[in-house]
Amino acid sequence: MGGGRPRDTGVEERVVAVAREMLREGGYARFAVDQVADRAGVAKTTVYRRWPSRDHLVVAAVATFLDDVAIEETGDLRADLVRIAAAIAAGLGQPGIRLLVSELIAAGARQPDLAASVYQLWARRRAASLDLFAAAVGQGEQADDVDPGLILDQIIGAVYYRALITGDPVDDDYLKRLVSAALAGAGVSSGGLA
Amino acid sequence: MGGGRPRDTGVEERVVAVAREMLREGGYARFAVDQVADRAGVAKTTVYRRWPSRDHLVVAAVATFLDDVAIEETGDLRADLVRIAAAIAAGLGQPGIRLLVSELIAAGARQPDLAASVYQLWARRRAASLDLFAAAVGQGEQADDVDPGLILDQIIGAVYYRALITGDPVDDDYLKRLVSAALAGAGVSSGGLA
Repeated sequence: MGGGRPRDTGVEERVVAVAREMLREGGYARFAVDQVADRAGVAKTTVYRRWPSRDHLVVAAVATFLDDVAIEETGDLRADLVRIAAAIAAGLGQPGIRLLVSELIAAGARQPDLAASVYQLWARRRAASLDLFAAAVGQGEQADDVDPGLILDQIIGAVYYRALITGDPVDDDYLKRLVSAALAGAGVSSGGLA
Repeated sequence: MGGGRPRDTGVEERVVAVAREMLREGGYARFAVDQVADRAGVAKTTVYRRWPSRDHLVVAAVATFLDDVAIEETGDLRADLVRIAAAIAAGLGQPGIRLLVSELIAAGARQPDLAASVYQLWARRRAASLDLFAAAVGQGEQADDVDPGLILDQIIGAVYYRALITGDPVDDDYLKRLVSAALAGAGVSSGGLA
């Protein structure tokens, strides 16, 4: 036997992978740290040393779902934004994901110390989307006084709002109109610079 | 004794009023139909006859919170939209309301038959906001080919997204920029018709 006990990063990855699997299988309600520890073959205290509560571990596991949505840059800002919005809409179209998202919001509202971790989850995704605008500026596709955050809020916000709150459908035609309206509102014309 | 047993509408109103009070006091987690029935002085079966589940009663009670946010029409579409958005942001700024909203979303994701009732909740509010656009058209303030629903999605969606998902602040300056961008995107200029 060479290494003996695996390095901590290995343990962390294994715990998160198991947590993710269990979330997929049973959702938030049935998620239990004991079972995650059991299945990952580590002590419960090891899990709690890294993630102070069940909710913290859930947040870490959900982070890995979000990383699955690749954000591609094709150089066409409008098309890239429609694709990002469509990927988010497809995710939220699944009741299991809607449930998880709402349970994360609820966890953040109940535990203020957790809210920061939950917000950070989305901030990471958001940062990747904002990079698209930086790239578009580099290509002269976007005016300098444009506020990319405001445009993203209008697009991604509308997708969340329809998926979580109003229940209205989010199809491709809608997303194209939405992205066009948000870009037009910021003075970004279809061709490129306003 | 004249009337004997009170008319059903009186009972319904009383039950909803008590349910609302108990939601305010203890939130969704501690909400119990037994206690509502007790405090309202009606049989539990009476409550269940009208609202098939605890969640259905919660939805009915939350509906009355939403009715509290008055939607005023001053004839200035932009200012009216900023005020509506600010009222929603103020509500969602309270952890108790954020919790309730997320718990309603979760309830809808868990019980498809409830989702329709939850969506209807917001649809009522949304209809009131859409009336603003109809009024603006009457006053020639808005172009005919404008899609009011799309504009509302961009504004209210961004407010929900920041309040529930990203945790970014929603202040008055932000709301003014947001409403202006959404109206500009639809070709509604500051003065009136595009």
